[in-house]
Amino acid sequence: MNGPGISVEELQLAARNHGMPLEGLRYDITPAGLHYLLTHYDIPAGDPATWRLEIGGAVERSLELSIEDLRARPSATLAVTLECAGNGRARLDPRPISQPWLLEAVGTAEWTGTTLGPVLREAGASPDALEVRFDGLDRGVEHETEQAFQRSLSLGEAMRNDVLLVYAMNGSPLLPQHGAPLRLVVPGWYGFASVKWLRHIEVLTQPFEGYQQSHAYRMRYEEDEPGTPLSRIRPRSLMIPPGMPEFLTRTRILDPGPCLLEGRAWSGVAPIARVEVSLDGGTRWQDAGLDPLPTSAYAWRRWTFSWDAKPGEHELCCRATDAVGETQPLEPEWNVGGYANNAVQRLPVTVRARPDPPTMTS
Amino acid sequence: MNGPGISVEELQLAARNHGMPLEGLRYDITPAGLHYLLTHYDIPAGDPATWRLEIGGAVERSLELSIEDLRARPSATLAVTLECAGNGRARLDPRPISQPWLLEAVGTAEWTGTTLGPVLREAGASPDALEVRFDGLDRGVEHETEQAFQRSLSLGEAMRNDVLLVYAMNGSPLLPQHGAPLRLVVPGWYGFASVKWLRHIEVLTQPFEGYQQSHAYRMRYEEDEPGTPLSRIRPRSLMIPPGMPEFLTRTRILDPGPCLLEGRAWSGVAPIARVEVSLDGGTRWQDAGLDPLPTSAYAWRRWTFSWDAKPGEHELCCRATDAVGETQPLEPEWNVGGYANNAVQRLPVTVRARPDPPTMTS
Repeated sequence: MNGPGISVEELQLAARNHGMPLEGLRYDITPAGLHYLLTHYDIPAGDPATWRLEIGGAVERSLELSIEDLRARPSATLAVTLECAGNGRARLDPRPISQPWLLEAVGTAEWTGTTLGPVLREAGASPDALEVRFDGLDRGVEHETEQAFQRSLSLGEAMRNDVLLVYAMNGSPLLPQHGAPLRLVVPGWYGFASVKWLRHIEVLTQPFEGYQQSHAYRMRYEEDEPGTPLSRIRPRSLMIPPGMPEFLTRTRILDPGPCLLEGRAWSGVAPIARVEVSLDGGTRWQDAGLDPLPTSAYAWRRWTFSWDAKPGEHELCCRATDAVGETQPLEPEWNVGGYANNAVQRLPVTVRARPDPPTMTS
Repeated sequence: MNGPGISVEELQLAARNHGMPLEGLRYDITPAGLHYLLTHYDIPAGDPATWRLEIGGAVERSLELSIEDLRARPSATLAVTLECAGNGRARLDPRPISQPWLLEAVGTAEWTGTTLGPVLREAGASPDALEVRFDGLDRGVEHETEQAFQRSLSLGEAMRNDVLLVYAMNGSPLLPQHGAPLRLVVPGWYGFASVKWLRHIEVLTQPFEGYQQSHAYRMRYEEDEPGTPLSRIRPRSLMIPPGMPEFLTRTRILDPGPCLLEGRAWSGVAPIARVEVSLDGGTRWQDAGLDPLPTSAYAWRRWTFSWDAKPGEHELCCRATDAVGETQPLEPEWNVGGYANNAVQRLPVTVRARPDPPTMTS
């Protein structure tokens, strides 16, 4: 983290919106409660019994579907890695003021639901339909305007056969904080597209210009420029911190000898093709071993690297490259909103001399 | 929060250890993933298949129990409110440097396991047994010493018939971050006593003097004094923030008119006997309504208060008193470790004039 200490506003957000402790990278599927979570406003108290999903706007027939209606449709389950577009924000200098993520705003879940496309086909989008807007139940004030959380997708993106209306996560009913009773999951995109607490879908013939679309979640290098919209997740790899931590500083302490470094890598654009490890802060790089590609094209891929740890101080790094050749930068790319900072992870570790006699307590 | 902005060390802890967003007070039983979580070191990767609980030390016979052995014993389920002893720390001035909790380090779960007492009776504590020490699998460095997380209870406290060896939470297998495969739950005590990832129980004939017992979790008003050990949870009440939030500041905005304030109150010492609400920052207090006492003596109690909200700025407060007359103070009691700050919650809200015409977006 750079710049001044964080403010009470940022701390309030950090206390609400939790990341995945990096040892959570050991799980193919992130257990409930370890998956990252970002809530713009409050977690709403939806009542599944009275809740309905409305589909309206530029359609031949409006639909109103209960959760039972949605469960009765063909179901699909897909493992998807979701990452917050603001992951890495607190590593930028100066630090954009918002949720102060370090590196941990990620998780992989098995999402179960029904494909959105057939629901839209049933409603019958008008020939001049351009976009599909998704409205959450959650309301609040942002940029001085009261709003529900709303995002849109192009009609083509919304019709992708892997965009899901989701009612279950890791085989259990969706938890309140993950969008119960129903959420959208848009594989490959940063988390903002996967609207939680979904209550209404509007087919539009004009581009949606709400706050979350036209102001937030855009790459802007100057405050006043319109910027370009974020969409797909940039490649990133993260490492399980080896050894053990010091409580307060989270400094890592290891014994010398063989140490298996491991982590996960993902990209929303293309499969992960390469992960490299540096043991010297990013000067020299060596290839890590890659596990077979996961069954789902949108789930992270495990990597490993055998290290013979020698006593001393080391800065461990990892770097992912995807199949279209996009790779992680060594330095962050600063931008106004603090988005998409996928600079390589840098993890200082101390390999101690082997203790003799042991200094461990019982 | 007072004093300087928080440091990267505190932010690292805040990103790992998550609180319960206060709208989570609406649930009798906190859903998985919303319950607060404090992990001193890393979440260990226990393997339930090879994991065994050892019971040793000053006993007639050492025991080694698998998770199946424990599940085969008589089971008990108890709703328990757990709170971190450091809850409220970031509200102290100067702010003790550790996990910077504001108010949200609390949760109520239904814990299922088997009573510890009969297991200790089966092992046969020696006549001179004084304490029982509980060792977690989690290791790290704290106060310059490598250690597992370890805490002890007096033999009498350990033999209480509601102290549980827990393998399930809210009807599902214990999650990794909550102590899988087995944890202790000590109802009424701050969370530190409920040792997670339990692997060993040692019956002692001398007081345990490890770091977490003799240095941490003690009320000290000067750095150098030994202090007194923390144990039971002090009374506290919290309120669901009414209205809706502004994203960054979390300022609350309400429409005028009837507004049901509601929250929960708990004490580890005695049942909650009274909750009061102040609408003017703590000058005048009025009694809130109390729901019937929960079935479990250790679960929080719901309270409600009907408020006719008038336009303007208000500071809402709530204050709990338990059946032995202990009540929440208006101001925090500063101490070195930043523990047990149960000062009343203060929630500034803005009641806006009823909008005419509506300014809400669709």
